[in-house]
Amino acid sequence: MGRTEINIVLLGLGVVGGGVARALQEKAEAYAEQAGLPLVLRRVLVRDPSKPRPISLDDGLMTADPDEALDADADIIVELMGGETPALDYIERSLKSGRHVVTANKEVVSKHWLRLHSAARDAGVEMHYEASVGGGIPIISPLKRDLAANEIIGIRAIINGTTNYILTRMAAEGVDFGDALRQAQELGYAEADPANDIEGQDSVYKLSILASLAFRTFISPDDIYREGITQLHARDFKYAAELGYIIKLLAVAKREQGGVRARVHPALLAKDELLARVDGVLNAVQVEGDLVGKVLFQGPGAGSEATASAVMADVLEAAKAIRSGEPTTPQDRSSGLAAEPISKLVSRYYVRIEVMDRPGVLAVIARSLGDHGVSIASVIQKETDEEGQTAELVIMTHGAREDSMQSSIKQIGGLPEVSEIGSVIRVED
Amino acid sequence: MGRTEINIVLLGLGVVGGGVARALQEKAEAYAEQAGLPLVLRRVLVRDPSKPRPISLDDGLMTADPDEALDADADIIVELMGGETPALDYIERSLKSGRHVVTANKEVVSKHWLRLHSAARDAGVEMHYEASVGGGIPIISPLKRDLAANEIIGIRAIINGTTNYILTRMAAEGVDFGDALRQAQELGYAEADPANDIEGQDSVYKLSILASLAFRTFISPDDIYREGITQLHARDFKYAAELGYIIKLLAVAKREQGGVRARVHPALLAKDELLARVDGVLNAVQVEGDLVGKVLFQGPGAGSEATASAVMADVLEAAKAIRSGEPTTPQDRSSGLAAEPISKLVSRYYVRIEVMDRPGVLAVIARSLGDHGVSIASVIQKETDEEGQTAELVIMTHGAREDSMQSSIKQIGGLPEVSEIGSVIRVED
Repeated sequence: MGRTEINIVLLGLGVVGGGVARALQEKAEAYAEQAGLPLVLRRVLVRDPSKPRPISLDDGLMTADPDEALDADADIIVELMGGETPALDYIERSLKSGRHVVTANKEVVSKHWLRLHSAARDAGVEMHYEASVGGGIPIISPLKRDLAANEIIGIRAIINGTTNYILTRMAAEGVDFGDALRQAQELGYAEADPANDIEGQDSVYKLSILASLAFRTFISPDDIYREGITQLHARDFKYAAELGYIIKLLAVAKREQGGVRARVHPALLAKDELLARVDGVLNAVQVEGDLVGKVLFQGPGAGSEATASAVMADVLEAAKAIRSGEPTTPQDRSSGLAAEPISKLVSRYYVRIEVMDRPGVLAVIARSLGDHGVSIASVIQKETDEEGQTAELVIMTHGAREDSMQSSIKQIGGLPEVSEIGSVIRVED
Repeated sequence: MGRTEINIVLLGLGVVGGGVARALQEKAEAYAEQAGLPLVLRRVLVRDPSKPRPISLDDGLMTADPDEALDADADIIVELMGGETPALDYIERSLKSGRHVVTANKEVVSKHWLRLHSAARDAGVEMHYEASVGGGIPIISPLKRDLAANEIIGIRAIINGTTNYILTRMAAEGVDFGDALRQAQELGYAEADPANDIEGQDSVYKLSILASLAFRTFISPDDIYREGITQLHARDFKYAAELGYIIKLLAVAKREQGGVRARVHPALLAKDELLARVDGVLNAVQVEGDLVGKVLFQGPGAGSEATASAVMADVLEAAKAIRSGEPTTPQDRSSGLAAEPISKLVSRYYVRIEVMDRPGVLAVIARSLGDHGVSIASVIQKETDEEGQTAELVIMTHGAREDSMQSSIKQIGGLPEVSEIGSVIRVED
């Protein structure tokens, strides 16, 4: 082949895009050696080419015209704009025109999984998205290759640094959610509009990608149960700690009851579990395979350079394949596993209830739980508010079905003896 | 291509070989789908084909004749015999005859790195050895691919389960080395002859492989400083804990002073470090890259099925390459980095010394350290043996050079005021 270089077009020059452009500049020689050919940046699509930037690019490289970028002579399109529109369009157009695509866009990849994979297959190119989950932590490639000999049993992950930072502060300092969020915003760990993170949506997109790969079936973000961290109270962390647990926002997907159940919600984790020790903005993904047992991948889940590490690993893979004329790998046949609803989940639960401080209250609550087939493992009466004549009960249940638990909680919430259901948090065993 | 299957020959049917043979049987359909062609076991080389085994293989598959196995119609040779002889010969012969090789043999791969890589390159095939380090934990492939965009700064690893189990028991229960070793042997975590593990040689082989890959230069096992765990005493764990440290057998390789310094020795690790929390037979490898920062890979470092997971991942990779006719990847040019000796290491040290319990002793010791440029960060006087009129000093130093430290320790050991140098352990910051 007469090819003398690998041409790259970059869509987006923000935090991650800037990191990638810098890596391409600073490590040009090392990358050329690894790929077998120089990697040449042909065009960079930005909103405003005149905006001052920390990185200096060759004149005329930047353009605000999508057509100019997408129609450039490129082998690999690197999409780092984020968001669904117009990124989806650009990725699809690139694949259809026979370009390999590298993207960090968890929203687009998870929502349009089948469509984009099919576009790539039809065009005989590959879509790479290592950076879409866990920043620089290798996890997509290990699932595709290194753990390929396993049937995956389950995935448990902490894949949102913003919420993990907030939960770590709440656990360590006893501060409330609002205070911890403000700290995170001041440090740049949370965005001005943090909804996507704190409501769990970001984790849902990432879990959708991990689960779809691991179980070889499309688990749509819509199929994933989602609960954010905004309802957690400082004392839940205190009580959890007393019981030997840490509260984390977990993303869990397991082969269960003939399908795959995927869910994102706060959970109590025994404090000696590996994941319980993943603090601050760190991310970690634990994968359980039938052969390998449990392996854990941990590292920085975000950041300009860490994410650029994953993007550039994908670019180098794509470049090697282009150079060697390697045929693209055929996609595995779908396992046909379907998404299971949360309603049939069997879990233990931590329940905090504010009740009237008078005799017989516990009996009423215990009866409701019992009627729904939920048995109590322990009850502790916490602080009593003498003035309000209320007390706080912390109940740990044995394994119970989610739908039974929710019905019982609804009934308990309506009891005259109960002032408030404080928290209902699943326990992850 | 008219190829209808991928033919495999297995050398060795022990713990790992048995796991691989079982996986090939039980997952035949899944593997055929992934590889694009059925994987067919053609021959299994064993010492005694008549020996009863937990796995039942087709008649005539087993042979004790190496030629019969090595000359069989095979695309991939899987070497799981262990040991240097005759495994080296079999691997080399297989590569030279154009077969892809998958091996878990850390000793052969590390000692004969250049020779085997060159044989593979000349024959246009690949040698895969994911299972040689960390059992089922993906680490070779992440270093080759997922972290390829980084310049690796350092590796710190716990890669011997036997010693980690022993050290975990010593730390948790205050038992002596001998007792912990016996426990490990009873549980099957240590061999009857444990020398290779407890003297650190097993970790040296594995670190040689990790460092050679990470720094793209051959770091021979002979270039790696080695110190085992047999000299550690129960009270070192107690004193270390009081100072906020855990003792682990670490394998460390870092880009330092223009080269690569690699070493295996017990080290004090601050107890909140991720690696300090890796307990029992678990293995973990932490890699620091200039882009990604620190990522950690953790999981079971041994065992039949976990190791089979890594072996089979390699087999599937090789099978895909064979099926697609993919050209082998050109080897990266060597970085030319040379191995640095331990003598110029700069480290903090923990020193336990038994001294005469009389005034002025500390002054003499401090003078020797000072004369050698070693400054003391803290001194604690521990138990005093009134009968023997001796006391125990635990000294933590500031950063000092290894050769200066060793000279000073030698001098201190010869002082009339000193009865014994108890321990000298490096502190890993």
